[in-house]
Amino acid sequence: MPTNRQVVLASYVTDAAQPENFALSEGPMPEPSEGEFLLRNMYFSMEPAIRGWVDGKANYFEPIPIGGVIRGPSVGQVIKSKNPDFAEGEYVYALNQWEDYSLCHSEAILLEKLKPEPGIPLSYYVGSLGGAGATAYIGLREVGLIQAGQTVIVSAAAGATGSMAGQIARLTGCKVIGIVGSDDKAELIVEQFGFDAAVNYKTEDVTEAVMAIAPEGVDIYFDNVGGPVLNAMLKTMKTYGRIVACGMISDYNRTDNPNPITNLWEMVSRQLTMQGFLLPTYQDEVPAAMAELEGWIRSGDIKVLENITEGFDNTPRAFCELMSGGTVGKALVRVDI
Amino acid sequence: MPTNRQVVLASYVTDAAQPENFALSEGPMPEPSEGEFLLRNMYFSMEPAIRGWVDGKANYFEPIPIGGVIRGPSVGQVIKSKNPDFAEGEYVYALNQWEDYSLCHSEAILLEKLKPEPGIPLSYYVGSLGGAGATAYIGLREVGLIQAGQTVIVSAAAGATGSMAGQIARLTGCKVIGIVGSDDKAELIVEQFGFDAAVNYKTEDVTEAVMAIAPEGVDIYFDNVGGPVLNAMLKTMKTYGRIVACGMISDYNRTDNPNPITNLWEMVSRQLTMQGFLLPTYQDEVPAAMAELEGWIRSGDIKVLENITEGFDNTPRAFCELMSGGTVGKALVRVDI
Repeated sequence: MPTNRQVVLASYVTDAAQPENFALSEGPMPEPSEGEFLLRNMYFSMEPAIRGWVDGKANYFEPIPIGGVIRGPSVGQVIKSKNPDFAEGEYVYALNQWEDYSLCHSEAILLEKLKPEPGIPLSYYVGSLGGAGATAYIGLREVGLIQAGQTVIVSAAAGATGSMAGQIARLTGCKVIGIVGSDDKAELIVEQFGFDAAVNYKTEDVTEAVMAIAPEGVDIYFDNVGGPVLNAMLKTMKTYGRIVACGMISDYNRTDNPNPITNLWEMVSRQLTMQGFLLPTYQDEVPAAMAELEGWIRSGDIKVLENITEGFDNTPRAFCELMSGGTVGKALVRVDI
Repeated sequence: MPTNRQVVLASYVTDAAQPENFALSEGPMPEPSEGEFLLRNMYFSMEPAIRGWVDGKANYFEPIPIGGVIRGPSVGQVIKSKNPDFAEGEYVYALNQWEDYSLCHSEAILLEKLKPEPGIPLSYYVGSLGGAGATAYIGLREVGLIQAGQTVIVSAAAGATGSMAGQIARLTGCKVIGIVGSDDKAELIVEQFGFDAAVNYKTEDVTEAVMAIAPEGVDIYFDNVGGPVLNAMLKTMKTYGRIVACGMISDYNRTDNPNPITNLWEMVSRQLTMQGFLLPTYQDEVPAAMAELEGWIRSGDIKVLENITEGFDNTPRAFCELMSGGTVGKALVRVDI
């Protein structure tokens, strides 16, 4: 029987995630019970949300215990099935684990059966056509209530979700500004993803820079970072503006000492709405989102930038690189079985 | 011609408001031009929002300049009119000024013609049937989307808006907990206003105390205070809970150094919505709100507690007392013309 390599939690992550927080383990390949099917994982999605599950504290999910296998979205192929809805050979996206073989079932979180289009790489279904794309699309539509002609700001704009959000906003007919952490990223999002402008939060005053580019004020702020950038953005919003609270990566490495927010009075003064959301809540909206995104990717209206790490054993390193803020595009791991 | 006493701004308020920040002045009684009408002010409404207009900084209104007359809601009687819609003898609520006589017109902010019911004191139309009542009603209904059976928490619960919000939530069929700053206020809101329970934020850990009384979690937090209480409340909310951002009085005396909020991650993790609002946005909803509130007050379902200061000259002192947090009920000034 094949062995099942797994990445497990070696120690709780308390600060910046380090490869030493993780360990490699091996177990037997699991066997599906009635209703289950077995996936061979092909790609792992590296996502900031995973940082919230490895610190030993309750979050919206149970924390992963020491020795527990790391939870994360993956794309896999069904290789054995005791579920009539999932046949051998089919492809699936779901919240699985960092391991060669994952057991899955019909009620798995984020579960979606994939019908990969000819000409679209399977890896796209991990990010642009997986959680990142769906999060960007649903965050702007269902939470941001985006409309043509609005001014939309996206933080972590060179990242998987941010780059998709910016492109979706552009295709919706909005003026789009991205906030990034380097001049290289600033150039990338304008030239590659078609943002109207970029702000480097490390070298510019975010409030002043955004107001210079968008003196009309901001209708929607799609926030992936929280912290000082969110604090600065509160002072740029139009009356009745909406803040889509998608993530707060600036606090993920410092959950015991999160960045203080001091401009919340603007919520009242400008009559803003801030709404947090998690993708599983909008599971029913995902197929329609995917269909439109697939069309945009096929037509070239949406560009996809991937950052693929080769090999199972490099998964912890790939995750730590993502969390360091040094990467661009969708970070994923190709599993070498 | 009668003189027109006015309260003007003597110096910008930078910390706790002091009577010395204000001065008394006199001018001639103004004359209405075409379309205007002249009010004899009978009651001034003391409101925390005024604190935001006397610090010399732009807010959602222009700041009041040094020497400018203080802006504030009042109830007055029409004594001269060049507006066919407002006849002499009629009563009006509007955002006027702290002065004996105010010019008013059809587009005045918060303008409402009053038809005082027999048996309801005119002063009630300053608070419970004025801005405080309308703010509480509209905040819970239009912003909080309140439903029977929910758990609702109200801060500054012994104050004008908070005491109304708590009673409205109780009458909607909700479990209601009030947050206050003294044991006397805690007793008052339970015994007088029918709150199910009270938490004293000065002597109790707000998160722990609320979770002990409402282990099911909080559906709606009606926030009048911001700051540490808001920060604590973020950790008590149910998934999809709503925070009605009505005011942030804990920061009004320290606008240069607002209280830091560190628990905003809960917005994402619990998928919360926080929405700020100002009453003038909902002007069209006010008459229906007033009609229902009048019914509840007449029937005794809503109790009104007033804190009336006698005499025009005492207006600055009454305002500073309100801002010190020492008062209960609706703070207002009866003008002695």
